[in-house]
Amino acid sequence: MNERDALRALAADLPHAGDDAAVVDGTVITTDMLHERTDFPPGTTRYTAGWRAVGASLSDVAATGAAARAAVAVYADEAFDRDELNSFVAGAVDVCEAVDAEYVGGDLDEHVEFTTATTAVGDVTAAGPVTRGGARPGDALCVTGEWGRSAAALRLFKRGDEEAVERANELFRFAPRVADGLALADSATAMMDSSDGLARSCHQLAEASEVGIEIERDAVPVHPAVEEVAGGSAERFELAAHFGEDFELLCAVPDEDFEMAAEACPAGLTRIGRVVEEPEEAPRVTVDGDPLPDRGFTHAEE
Amino acid sequence: MNERDALRALAADLPHAGDDAAVVDGTVITTDMLHERTDFPPGTTRYTAGWRAVGASLSDVAATGAAARAAVAVYADEAFDRDELNSFVAGAVDVCEAVDAEYVGGDLDEHVEFTTATTAVGDVTAAGPVTRGGARPGDALCVTGEWGRSAAALRLFKRGDEEAVERANELFRFAPRVADGLALADSATAMMDSSDGLARSCHQLAEASEVGIEIERDAVPVHPAVEEVAGGSAERFELAAHFGEDFELLCAVPDEDFEMAAEACPAGLTRIGRVVEEPEEAPRVTVDGDPLPDRGFTHAEE
Repeated sequence: MNERDALRALAADLPHAGDDAAVVDGTVITTDMLHERTDFPPGTTRYTAGWRAVGASLSDVAATGAAARAAVAVYADEAFDRDELNSFVAGAVDVCEAVDAEYVGGDLDEHVEFTTATTAVGDVTAAGPVTRGGARPGDALCVTGEWGRSAAALRLFKRGDEEAVERANELFRFAPRVADGLALADSATAMMDSSDGLARSCHQLAEASEVGIEIERDAVPVHPAVEEVAGGSAERFELAAHFGEDFELLCAVPDEDFEMAAEACPAGLTRIGRVVEEPEEAPRVTVDGDPLPDRGFTHAEE
Repeated sequence: MNERDALRALAADLPHAGDDAAVVDGTVITTDMLHERTDFPPGTTRYTAGWRAVGASLSDVAATGAAARAAVAVYADEAFDRDELNSFVAGAVDVCEAVDAEYVGGDLDEHVEFTTATTAVGDVTAAGPVTRGGARPGDALCVTGEWGRSAAALRLFKRGDEEAVERANELFRFAPRVADGLALADSATAMMDSSDGLARSCHQLAEASEVGIEIERDAVPVHPAVEEVAGGSAERFELAAHFGEDFELLCAVPDEDFEMAAEACPAGLTRIGRVVEEPEEAPRVTVDGDPLPDRGFTHAEE
């Protein structure tokens, strides 16, 4: 089984699995593992790694519309360099502070590869947790922020000069959209974060909600850094829609609530398309009328 | 820095780190990472691994005297075998059920080595979280259950025949002492779990509480499985006191509360010594009047 099939098998067995985060008695809990070979390109500082790893879990909390309360991390490596460890913790502390959560430590483990496992907990608002499964035909399909920053970062890491690597590290330190998730908790009918990229996330949300999705290519907000690294508009859309790991929010909002919701989102909210009736046959998700493939980033592509 | 020094450095920087679990607004949160090379000897089933890994985090919740609410795990491996994954999840679900908690899923990660990162959350009782730092001279020093089961298990895994491996798996599936921790939450002045073994745990508790500890060798309850694998009484004490990973509780209880506390502990509570004034010079911890070295299990020993 590949990771995706295995996740599906797990979701079938565990009632609280399958969404970005599990919810138990009003507490959201979510966990992730990132490691050097696949998640931290050469040049990634430990400060950036701590920020990004803990941020990934905070992003899952944001996706449920919950307030982030606290995060922990396991830091595993072949050996422990005090400066590296301090930098990692500083990044973890800072990303928590950015979303009004508290970093409360964790554990260390000697491991063959730099690996970190992070967990965040949060508190569901009175509106209850938002899941992927409630989008209704007619809803506006919306995204927070701008897309493609991680794709751009990876190209800058590859470029490798000092300036590019510094910029790449900045891009890798995304702001988890906790405030936006909270602002959307009342109005969003479905929400998720975009770990797997816009295209795959649209498919996942559409499947969970049993609807179709139509998006407009030119409506997708592309991060300015993508302009720096990508040639034409096709490549820019590829990086913004298929790369993933941007940790922005994708959500469905009733049309009449869009303006109010957009004003309440600090990261900005852009309408990129709409939710439609579930089509009788593929494609489930279209972009400007053409099928949008259910294809995310594969590490082999870069 | 080795793992221990690194943990100390971390504890100094993070106010909530250093105890078995962090407590934020009444919620206990704790995380651990275990992996094949150091934690799961050949013969360990994935069911046992799931039970033990999630159990280790539940044990940290127990050590604070909190009720366990939920646990998550990241399951990382080179590839995902559906049977292995299902067995792991079944073990995780069963150990949660054993302590009235809920296993709510987690994440998967492709990794070079079978690795699991687990997180448990719990709810502090009205008595507040018990830490390592409150033991007072005159308190009875107590332990739950029987000690040395993981040491015995490791020897049985090494023996390698089918019967030994089956018994070793059983021994590895310890019962997290959540009910005992809850029963002790009101009376214990200090508490921790015994991940690092009795000797090292005594040193940690004594240091955190700024006290001395005197234990009696013959009072330490040794698990019957230790008899099966160890020759004389010296070796039995070595395995019970220095091996660790038994996930029993070590606590200090006011003398007058001992009987009541013992009756309330399902796993049994044994008085193994007493808390004394902090000595002006080493040793801080003695066994039958001799120094008890601050020495735990090192993987190289076995």
